[in-house]
Amino acid sequence: MTATAAFVTSLVISFVIFVVLFLLFLILSRRPGNFHVYHPLRALRGEGPFGNKYGPFQWAIDAFRVTDEQLVAAAGLDAVVYVNLFTTALEITVLSAVFCIIVLIPICATENNNFEMAKNKSNDFNYSGFDNLSMSNIPSGSPKIWAFLIGVYWVSIVTYYSLWRAYKKVFSLRNMMHSSEVSRPQQYTVLVRDIPVSQEHEKRTEQVESFFRRVHPHSYERCMIMHDFSEAESLYNEREVASRKLEHAEAVFELSKGKPGSDGVRPMHKTGFMGLLGPKVDSIEFWTKKIHELTPQLEEARKKCKAEANEDAALVFFNERLAAAQAAQSVHAAYALEWQVEPAAEPRECIWRNMHLSAWQRSIRKPVVYVVTFFVVIFYMIPIAAISAITTLENLETVLPFIKSITRIKALNAILQAYLPQLALIVFLALLPKLLLTLSKAEGIPSKSHISRAASGKYFYFMIFNVFLGVTIFGAVFSSFKGFKVLIDQQQLSVSKVVELFGTKLPPVSTYFITYVALKFFVGYGLEISRIIPLIIYHIKRKFLCKTERELEDAWAPGSFSYHTSVPSDLLVVTLTLSYSVIAPMILVFAFLYFAIGWLVMRNSALNVYVPEWESNGRMWPHIHNRILVALLVSQITALGFFAVKKFPYTVFLIFLPLATFAFYLYCKRNFYKSFAVVSLYVASQPVKETPSMDTIVQAYTPTCLLEGDQFEDADFQDARSNMTSRTNSGIATPAERNV
Amino acid sequence: MTATAAFVTSLVISFVIFVVLFLLFLILSRRPGNFHVYHPLRALRGEGPFGNKYGPFQWAIDAFRVTDEQLVAAAGLDAVVYVNLFTTALEITVLSAVFCIIVLIPICATENNNFEMAKNKSNDFNYSGFDNLSMSNIPSGSPKIWAFLIGVYWVSIVTYYSLWRAYKKVFSLRNMMHSSEVSRPQQYTVLVRDIPVSQEHEKRTEQVESFFRRVHPHSYERCMIMHDFSEAESLYNEREVASRKLEHAEAVFELSKGKPGSDGVRPMHKTGFMGLLGPKVDSIEFWTKKIHELTPQLEEARKKCKAEANEDAALVFFNERLAAAQAAQSVHAAYALEWQVEPAAEPRECIWRNMHLSAWQRSIRKPVVYVVTFFVVIFYMIPIAAISAITTLENLETVLPFIKSITRIKALNAILQAYLPQLALIVFLALLPKLLLTLSKAEGIPSKSHISRAASGKYFYFMIFNVFLGVTIFGAVFSSFKGFKVLIDQQQLSVSKVVELFGTKLPPVSTYFITYVALKFFVGYGLEISRIIPLIIYHIKRKFLCKTERELEDAWAPGSFSYHTSVPSDLLVVTLTLSYSVIAPMILVFAFLYFAIGWLVMRNSALNVYVPEWESNGRMWPHIHNRILVALLVSQITALGFFAVKKFPYTVFLIFLPLATFAFYLYCKRNFYKSFAVVSLYVASQPVKETPSMDTIVQAYTPTCLLEGDQFEDADFQDARSNMTSRTNSGIATPAERNV
Repeated sequence: MTATAAFVTSLVISFVIFVVLFLLFLILSRRPGNFHVYHPLRALRGEGPFGNKYGPFQWAIDAFRVTDEQLVAAAGLDAVVYVNLFTTALEITVLSAVFCIIVLIPICATENNNFEMAKNKSNDFNYSGFDNLSMSNIPSGSPKIWAFLIGVYWVSIVTYYSLWRAYKKVFSLRNMMHSSEVSRPQQYTVLVRDIPVSQEHEKRTEQVESFFRRVHPHSYERCMIMHDFSEAESLYNEREVASRKLEHAEAVFELSKGKPGSDGVRPMHKTGFMGLLGPKVDSIEFWTKKIHELTPQLEEARKKCKAEANEDAALVFFNERLAAAQAAQSVHAAYALEWQVEPAAEPRECIWRNMHLSAWQRSIRKPVVYVVTFFVVIFYMIPIAAISAITTLENLETVLPFIKSITRIKALNAILQAYLPQLALIVFLALLPKLLLTLSKAEGIPSKSHISRAASGKYFYFMIFNVFLGVTIFGAVFSSFKGFKVLIDQQQLSVSKVVELFGTKLPPVSTYFITYVALKFFVGYGLEISRIIPLIIYHIKRKFLCKTERELEDAWAPGSFSYHTSVPSDLLVVTLTLSYSVIAPMILVFAFLYFAIGWLVMRNSALNVYVPEWESNGRMWPHIHNRILVALLVSQITALGFFAVKKFPYTVFLIFLPLATFAFYLYCKRNFYKSFAVVSLYVASQPVKETPSMDTIVQAYTPTCLLEGDQFEDADFQDARSNMTSRTNSGIATPAERNV
Repeated sequence: MTATAAFVTSLVISFVIFVVLFLLFLILSRRPGNFHVYHPLRALRGEGPFGNKYGPFQWAIDAFRVTDEQLVAAAGLDAVVYVNLFTTALEITVLSAVFCIIVLIPICATENNNFEMAKNKSNDFNYSGFDNLSMSNIPSGSPKIWAFLIGVYWVSIVTYYSLWRAYKKVFSLRNMMHSSEVSRPQQYTVLVRDIPVSQEHEKRTEQVESFFRRVHPHSYERCMIMHDFSEAESLYNEREVASRKLEHAEAVFELSKGKPGSDGVRPMHKTGFMGLLGPKVDSIEFWTKKIHELTPQLEEARKKCKAEANEDAALVFFNERLAAAQAAQSVHAAYALEWQVEPAAEPRECIWRNMHLSAWQRSIRKPVVYVVTFFVVIFYMIPIAAISAITTLENLETVLPFIKSITRIKALNAILQAYLPQLALIVFLALLPKLLLTLSKAEGIPSKSHISRAASGKYFYFMIFNVFLGVTIFGAVFSSFKGFKVLIDQQQLSVSKVVELFGTKLPPVSTYFITYVALKFFVGYGLEISRIIPLIIYHIKRKFLCKTERELEDAWAPGSFSYHTSVPSDLLVVTLTLSYSVIAPMILVFAFLYFAIGWLVMRNSALNVYVPEWESNGRMWPHIHNRILVALLVSQITALGFFAVKKFPYTVFLIFLPLATFAFYLYCKRNFYKSFAVVSLYVASQPVKETPSMDTIVQAYTPTCLLEGDQFEDADFQDARSNMTSRTNSGIATPAERNV
């Protein structure tokens, strides 16, 4: 049975890779030199490496033991919500397995439909031994299918139950954050968009002021009109670059002094293209002069910004959380397209450029982006396939003859032969998340967390279409010659034929997906926990490039979770698990491993590695929740089709499940969702320990490049510390926490 | 050409009926004895009949001249919105006619496709001369179809333009009402539903009080918990009946005294079934005793009501319009299904029984009602058709032999033969609006105006399906033997055949609809303006039944507009007009007559006749607006199909129109609709002349049967005036304005 052999080989290879990476992690993470790569959060908190009594598996124990509240305090609610995706999927997997593994696997194993089919249909029916544990081994119309029908209900019900529990948990954590005694600037702030042109030729500030004083006479405090600060921003960034270059040059000079019998060599560089052309200058002098030039220019640009604040959007600040929460939910003007008010995003999250887009712009950008996304989802694979077909070694040799000299080496030839066609796939798929982020930004969304959610949603549908449906359909149609012939032979093409084809071919595809899940978890988690790539980059940079403290910090900066790629790929595994949990229950074993190890690894990453760039207080959860429901719906429809193919007359009983899923979706949306979109009045009415001063709040919402009195104002460049995002999770953000 | 003859005959008969009814109106309305029937509003205002200098057409001049503001003051905004439906439809018709009549009719008239078709296909192609002015007279694939394509765009654009203007007008009238200096009790009130079970075993009042004091510390005033007052209500109604009977008996006694030489005969009646059985009693004594018995019982029931107020819904009163407007838009509790707050309906509108339905109940009732409505819309005609088929005279004679004695009379026999099969249709269709009202009430909607809208929507879809689609499809398929044969002969059935069939048969159906519109307007408006049926009923009652002033008032009470039947049938005419405006432009002439005369007649009715039962401040308009857009969409899709059938290759250009309609719908919804669902803060922040006292507001929201200190409390029965709804439109409703 070659199918089984291939399957086992694939699993073994993945497993070996995982073991190697995991051993690397155990060894490397204990070396003090790698401390910054494996424990950047400790480093940021100013704590040193662990002592020797910290056992090799202590990280796992810590990650296992940490409570949700501790994790919220350490890594923020967004990270907890991401980990909660694993918790929920794990719960669904375990509860599903209770029925599917214990009841359905024995039923499958005691039948031998696959064997009979293979005997009757000879060579075009191919199955692995593993397939005997799937529903394909049950003969059509058998009364044993009742057990599988109950299985579909069981899986649906445990999914509803787990999702409901999970929503409730995240819901109460989010409300806890919002009603916490410690207040945050965004709780006092709303974003006002589409301010109409004033009839009375008053200034924007006066207009907003008089409108809000009238509508919120007791609670309105101050407003900040949006304006275009791109000039100030570019000057600020230029000066940042200059200051880094200056630091670098000074450090190089210091180092050269250190050599015995030398006064030091002043570093020089060329000012032209990439430091390769142009006149040579003294670096320290050059950058110092540059900073002295830029500082007054920046000052000028800042003043201009403030004078010209006249965009049709503003941030409005209130003196109470309750008032801001209430204002963010109300229709302010009679024409609801004017004076649109919504809760303000956290200062770190704000995308200033998108804030003053008009309602018209947004309502045109959105459908355009959706249409583009639709085409990307449907047609992205076609150019990849075309390029893959073209980029064979033979084709390349005719176009670029000099390649021949390389391809003469036999080993290299073999590798190129194998991997060249994959190259386009790898490059294009790596570009996709960036493209989806850009598309989401073009929608006009004003906050980073929302853009991340939007991109995640697009990527999810891309994967459902191209991986789940793509593999299933192509797998079903093209896996056997007969299937292919049916499609080509138009005369024979009929709905019942196609349905029959799918019915026989779905379970074998499950083997492919089990391999996929196994590869993803063995290799993916191996890379995640061993951090082998950041480690190598860090050491190379430290050795050859970094001269200053700040450059070193940048070298080990761990970044944040990239939810827009990780959430959809985990959701794809949920979709696969739900869809095959009844048809081929063995997938549950691999899903269990995937989610269990993922749960541990991600908790470790949240606790020790990643630094959140922003905090949306768990707004990702409704997004995840809805997509798990989509996955469930897909699985229910798959089951409906598959059971019908098995000629099981009671398949009609499955028709209630999609309706139940829809009802559950509505219930959760109505009961929980509003608390994620806005803050309910009761939650906002919880008393605060200390109302922050209006100045702190306004300062928190001032873009970094416009903050006055920064380190260069007095031109002695002291304390030029990194402004890397720190992870203070509570209270007012310090200026260093802001990213423009 | 018999088709033409039948068409003309039908028009002439309708026209004669209209002329007769209109002449009757001109004569009868000038007789002082009919004053109360034709001018009930003057009578209610206490003004007398017009003098002789009031010309016979003065009513038309008055109806023509009255401005929107005057009409709002006289008849309320709801009536103005209803009249606005006619204004808008008239505008659409006239603007469409500018292109369709002037350009398209000459193009149709100069072709002779119908004649050619009739010549070629002999007897199964039937057309009237009128059809030569429709698009069916244009040969397939002719470049002249370009003109019709432009016509579809023209009609769509004028519809958008008129709808936008109309929405803006109603919108500003509504906001004017809401920001008026004179405040109304509903502006200070919100309805709170789904109050959760209290955790602290406090009383409902305390629970609501403490919640709202916390969330709205500055503006909360008072609350009124919902309770079951059905016992008090039935006692109150019983006493009302008794008081009317007593008045009647006293009046009869007084009259009998008036006869010369008589001390009067004390009226007597039997107490048993329908006054036919049981012991005979003195009526005056009997009803007086009854009232004396009921009054303390009612008092008891009222006290019980107040003590037991513990339903999970409440009315909450605020001290400012702004605060109530803001509260009605906010999510109050973290679980959004708890403490749901919405704007309170006007006191007269409230349906107390629906107010305390829980979120669960409402979310189950709604889909159930929708499913039932779906089946009613689809299958209502089937039992009617079945009953019509059975209720022939022959069948009835076999079941009920005694009928034979009647059917021997020849004239009667002929009438019965003709109308018996229609009887089921008439009875069932007359029952339908009642059924739809009941269904809408069962949804759990807490206000009368909303129920009226819901029933209107259901009736609209019923008519679109059964009249518009029904007649079109049946007309197209069964109007020719060939069509029928195609459907029966399954072997020949193919999509292209069916499409072709529709293409040839749609325009002839237009003649049927022109007849329909003509009949509706000639006969309908004739009946509306002549008020012949209320007149006859009034005179019969006055002659034989009414003894007291109150009974007489009830006899001429004009009632209110019944929007739930009139709006959908007017919208059906809009649908027909839009759908045939390009295919058969002559329908525009009849539509013009329908809407122009309707406009005048309805303005007269609003000014002189109907008494509004409630006032929703124009909330009907978004409903009408959306359904006109549905009509437009139907017309665009019809055009798409019909042009395709005409083998016109540029039909694809029509594909943008449904998209434009959807975009226009979204724009209007986002820009205008919110001001109809809630009151925007800016509008609510307009200052009021005088804030009403909390007691007046609470009293306005107390059901009539629970109001203390009414006319019977001191048991001397003075001033027992009718509590007929009076039409005060501004300020706080007096107790007499309230209907429970």
